Amino acid sequence: MLGMLNVIVTDPPRADLADVDKLATYGVATVHEAIGRAGYLGPQLRPNQQGTRIAGTALTVVCWPGDNLMIHAAVEQAKPGDIIVITTTSANGDGGFGELLATSLASKGVRGLVMGAGLRDTQELRDMGFPAWTAHVSAQGTVKETPGAVNVPVSLGGQLIRPGDAIVADDDGVCVVPRLEVPAAVAASEARIAKEDASRKKLAAGELGLDLYNLRPKLAGVDYITYAEYVKRSGEGL
Amino acid sequence: MLGMLNVIVTDPPRADLADVDKLATYGVATVHEAIGRAGYLGPQLRPNQQGTRIAGTALTVVCWPGDNLMIHAAVEQAKPGDIIVITTTSANGDGGFGELLATSLASKGVRGLVMGAGLRDTQELRDMGFPAWTAHVSAQGTVKETPGAVNVPVSLGGQLIRPGDAIVADDDGVCVVPRLEVPAAVAASEARIAKEDASRKKLAAGELGLDLYNLRPKLAGVDYITYAEYVKRSGEGL
Amino acid sequence: MLGMLNVIVTDPPRADLADVDKLATYGVATVHEAIGRAGYLGPQLRPNQQGTRIAGTALTVVCWPGDNLMIHAAVEQAKPGDIIVITTTSANGDGGFGELLATSLASKGVRGLVMGAGLRDTQELRDMGFPAWTAHVSAQGTVKETPGAVNVPVSLGGQLIRPGDAIVADDDGVCVVPRLEVPAAVAASEARIAKEDASRKKLAAGELGLDLYNLRPKLAGVDYITYAEYVKRSGEGL
Amino acid sequence: MLGMLNVIVTDPPRADLADVDKLATYGVATVHEAIGRAGYLGPQLRPNQQGTRIAGTALTVVCWPGDNLMIHAAVEQAKPGDIIVITTTSANGDGGFGELLATSLASKGVRGLVMGAGLRDTQELRDMGFPAWTAHVSAQGTVKETPGAVNVPVSLGGQLIRPGDAIVADDDGVCVVPRLEVPAAVAASEARIAKEDASRKKLAAGELGLDLYNLRPKLAGVDYITYAEYVKRSGEGL
Amino acid sequence: MLGMLNVIVTDPPRADLADVDKLATYGVATVHEAIGRAGYLGPQLRPNQQGTRIAGTALTVVCWPGDNLMIHAAVEQAKPGDIIVITTTSANGDGGFGELLATSLASKGVRGLVMGAGLRDTQELRDMGFPAWTAHVSAQGTVKETPGAVNVPVSLGGQLIRPGDAIVADDDGVCVVPRLEVPAAVAASEARIAKEDASRKKLAAGELGLDLYNLRPKLAGVDYITYAEYVKRSGEGL
Amino acid sequence: MLGMLNVIVTDPPRADLADVDKLATYGVATVHEAIGRAGYLGPQLRPNQQGTRIAGTALTVVCWPGDNLMIHAAVEQAKPGDIIVITTTSANGDGGFGELLATSLASKGVRGLVMGAGLRDTQELRDMGFPAWTAHVSAQGTVKETPGAVNVPVSLGGQLIRPGDAIVADDDGVCVVPRLEVPAAVAASEARIAKEDASRKKLAAGELGLDLYNLRPKLAGVDYITYAEYVKRSGEGL
Repeated sequence: MLGMLNVIVTDPPRADLADVDKLATYGVATVHEAIGRAGYLGPQLRPNQQGTRIAGTALTVVCWPGDNLMIHAAVEQAKPGDIIVITTTSANGDGGFGELLATSLASKGVRGLVMGAGLRDTQELRDMGFPAWTAHVSAQGTVKETPGAVNVPVSLGGQLIRPGDAIVADDDGVCVVPRLEVPAAVAASEARIAKEDASRKKLAAGELGLDLYNLRPKLAGVDYITYAEYVKRSGEGL
Repeated sequence: MLGMLNVIVTDPPRADLADVDKLATYGVATVHEAIGRAGYLGPQLRPNQQGTRIAGTALTVVCWPGDNLMIHAAVEQAKPGDIIVITTTSANGDGGFGELLATSLASKGVRGLVMGAGLRDTQELRDMGFPAWTAHVSAQGTVKETPGAVNVPVSLGGQLIRPGDAIVADDDGVCVVPRLEVPAAVAASEARIAKEDASRKKLAAGELGLDLYNLRPKLAGVDYITYAEYVKRSGEGL
Repeated sequence: MLGMLNVIVTDPPRADLADVDKLATYGVATVHEAIGRAGYLGPQLRPNQQGTRIAGTALTVVCWPGDNLMIHAAVEQAKPGDIIVITTTSANGDGGFGELLATSLASKGVRGLVMGAGLRDTQELRDMGFPAWTAHVSAQGTVKETPGAVNVPVSLGGQLIRPGDAIVADDDGVCVVPRLEVPAAVAASEARIAKEDASRKKLAAGELGLDLYNLRPKLAGVDYITYAEYVKRSGEGL
Repeated sequence: MLGMLNVIVTDPPRADLADVDKLATYGVATVHEAIGRAGYLGPQLRPNQQGTRIAGTALTVVCWPGDNLMIHAAVEQAKPGDIIVITTTSANGDGGFGELLATSLASKGVRGLVMGAGLRDTQELRDMGFPAWTAHVSAQGTVKETPGAVNVPVSLGGQLIRPGDAIVADDDGVCVVPRLEVPAAVAASEARIAKEDASRKKLAAGELGLDLYNLRPKLAGVDYITYAEYVKRSGEGL
Repeated sequence: MLGMLNVIVTDPPRADLADVDKLATYGVATVHEAIGRAGYLGPQLRPNQQGTRIAGTALTVVCWPGDNLMIHAAVEQAKPGDIIVITTTSANGDGGFGELLATSLASKGVRGLVMGAGLRDTQELRDMGFPAWTAHVSAQGTVKETPGAVNVPVSLGGQLIRPGDAIVADDDGVCVVPRLEVPAAVAASEARIAKEDASRKKLAAGELGLDLYNLRPKLAGVDYITYAEYVKRSGEGL
Repeated sequence: MLGMLNVIVTDPPRADLADVDKLATYGVATVHEAIGRAGYLGPQLRPNQQGTRIAGTALTVVCWPGDNLMIHAAVEQAKPGDIIVITTTSANGDGGFGELLATSLASKGVRGLVMGAGLRDTQELRDMGFPAWTAHVSAQGTVKETPGAVNVPVSLGGQLIRPGDAIVADDDGVCVVPRLEVPAAVAASEARIAKEDASRKKLAAGELGLDLYNLRPKLAGVDYITYAEYVKRSGEGL
């Protein structure tokens, strides 16, 4: 959590959805590399489904641990194309999000969920096609008592996420692209896709990455030795 | 582990299977909420399969770490409708349960496994349709040396489980309902299902949880502000 | 990591592929038990796919954390039938392996990946049928700067893996069999399979493991008591 | 958490303090062994100080995560000789206990704290001599909103703790002894201390545990071999 | 990591040191509460020493995992009164900071270290009086190859830290106060200290927190019952 | 665990104690760097005391989880100058080592303990001056049932440890030096100490590591910019 508490911001600017939709076609690893190995929210956010790739604009939420009051407040602020991004003021894995909240958000055109806390109704969410990336799965119920914030900057997985930033998510995890950098990210991702397509063909044909990426100079200090030589040098059986 | 060691209780009372079967139709999250947000065994018990929901009566086992002797002793006590619940005297993730033990238990009418230790033969268990929820997956073999207990009270995931208690398990995890509270849990779950069905229809139609659950008074101290106002107050770019 | 750094061994001896192929048919749990409950690389190495069982010869790699330079160097040493086994000099979960490297290795006849670090492009790898067992999933990109080693002994999951050792992997994890012990492992696994087939039939028919494995003497100090007796002895309600 | 919520039990029976005080002189490892390797709350409960050994009667508390309301309610129920034992309905590490609560409890004669959640003011607590064993250290503040329970049975570290049970704590962790078993635990601990004193003298004089505990028969299947023989058998350099 | 890579910012504005020095006298828990339960970097940052409380201005660093090149670059930017705050682009625990770097920083007037990665030379650092709060202790050496950044915004423990922000650290962990909010934090902390002093006296005299903080209305739904009544209601022995 | 089970090797060659004693004077971080950033057993092995630095020859033990039988068997093989190194066949944190075993080993001239499992009697061990580095602290008792091995190669913390190898341990953790490489490690450590002494003087005098280690070329692609320029480029407030 980073931003102010006890506020709900009602009209944050959002990244252009046409650009955001393009990010979904590239996927998390490509976008992350294209923007300078940045924006990845880390390995702890795991998908609740397999084979789904989405992008959307961040609708950010700050809850207290074990309390999902502000998710309800966030629904009212949701816009079509949003992905809801839920954080807690301190680490918590309780199951504050399930199928009823997903039904409510889906009715507003929200595309999915990214959350540091816990998910419940996991099978129901797969059945209804509401994709989710969360750090925990838990049936543990929560209270609705203490206000937090909606649409303020939040921190999740070591990244800063502002409302309206672009979120990309697939089986590799979740990546954030700052709103103002989305057009550049689209261009850089396109370029990377083209380059990787060319590399893939060469590698499939047997060309070595050592040559394709000109890596042999980095191996300057490395000895290529035979098995017999290794056994002699190391004193080990191999 | 909680109960006495070096005993095997041969005839514990069990929850009524007709009631227990109803619990399976509600699922873990619903039952947990219906009985007062109680009984959930926590997020570390994960299913070995996807999309299976069962309920049964607890056949409890206490093993020593890395030792599965007492699981064999428990098979003899198994009754149709049981779910075997295996704990260790201290934390251990070794693979003390696999396909042969499942074959043995299935022949007695046991419906599945809940275990704090490790599972092996995971694909075989999916193939034979024996569902399992465990804290670990591991091929590590175990010994059969030191006696523990069967059908004594055990502790798993912060819950007390007595033999004959009702166990519910699905993709969200595992929940225990004390034997004497099962009829009340059935009634409370039925009521909750009915209430959630009504809520789901309203939420799908766009009604807000803020209104449906009367949450706006809890947001009394929260300011609704514009983006421009947030930037001014916080001193941040948004 | 165990072996010397800054060396690439070019021609290590490898286990016979005909023997190695047999190990794949037995699976990890069986081979691990057959060779004396040895060789299991532990529960942290999880499959990226479900239902795949492979075996191959180890092509070992030592990388620095967050650096995948040596994987490229290893491709040049790859032989048909290999499984690439990647370790880091210290714990690291970054996504140093993805679909392009898999394409390159597949073109050399490499059968799969075992890695202590992180995997990216997880869906693409499933789509292309390149199986992987890793301790982490991560989109985090890596650099290509610092040399390590190829085909030296490595340590992963508490096991020593030498180049050319046999690797078996399935949904239960990964097991290593030292090159010189592969023929004996084949024989011992065959014997175990036969014995388990016989046991399975008896257990399915209701024979107890207590009798089949002659375990009752191990329960000599255990009291079989009724529920009423337990309540009396323990002072608890049951 | 195990017991009912929304209740405060006002007068639970407590173990005799004269017996409880004896348990402090034996320490956790001895008492745990003496009562049959039972009652240990596990390695995650660490002392906030070094070299302190206490015992007392359990004053149990159930809080919601991130909420310390019920600790205040528990102070009113505190009796001289108590150790407060605080659990949460789901896993939480926030800093719900600090120096002001310790001041309040110390004024009632409470001897220390055992808690699954987080501790703050750690230096101040050492300075004032209020010993604490907790699973977390955290400065994160908590709310005071949702009622839980006082003096109901709780589960912590896999053990059941009822109000009035004896708690022993030192640098090795925390152990619970059920109230009715305290006199037997005192006797068994005394016997164990005497036996260990005798063993210590013999071991210090060079007698082997193999002989003292008659363990050589357990090594019946073990080969004593020379280094040269091991190298030959294993095919390894040693 | 949050800010741009491959830049070193040479003259960020810093919080006033006179104000910062006052924060050290209040400590982490007090400042965190005073600024609205904000700014705490979480329980994973542990002190390398006991009983030290400091505050300073953040000198921020972004390193790659297993690479400490940018710490050397940061020394050149250090100013008296700084605390160096080191993050990595992805999670890493290697020992990139030890006694030589501390010597270098101490010569510039730097007051201490906060780091997500690993610390080495822990005893030497205690001996020389250079305080450190880190997520890991590790002797594992690092390379010096890949540039990151100095004095850009960083994320650590879920908080945003900008260069020149105030850092407070003691045995409870680490707290950040944004540069522009430092004067207000001083005032709020003073007020909290005064209030806590008054509360402490009352609590020590036996007044209950329930009354002092007017918490009894929050317990409206709670039943005060006797032990006998609890046994009856719950069906348990107590 | 790596070596054969069910064997006790009675007379492994050991590193020369005069050399080993020198390693203790350099410490873990220095020796690890001097031998090529190798041999470190990782951050999970923590000291039970503060400020102690020792070295000795490895007396290796393989136990089953929750079983300390082989530690007793190892005492008989102990030689003056040994450090006992205890592993388990699978991960286990139980308290299999305490003050009585330390008494027994101390009577043989053993210098300390390195163990992947759990330690008990922690205060007593500090009081008697028997240093220990373990992955866990636990009072949980163990059985003495299943044979393992003594003085075979073991794996701990990703390193291979053969009996007679040199072990160095201090507050930074534990490092192993292969027996045959000990003389070279002594020479390399001496050289490193001398070089670090020279560096320390220069750094204390204010010379920058950037210049001392010639690191400026590695920063070739980095921009040094003012705060004003950063704000302009990044679009953020700083």
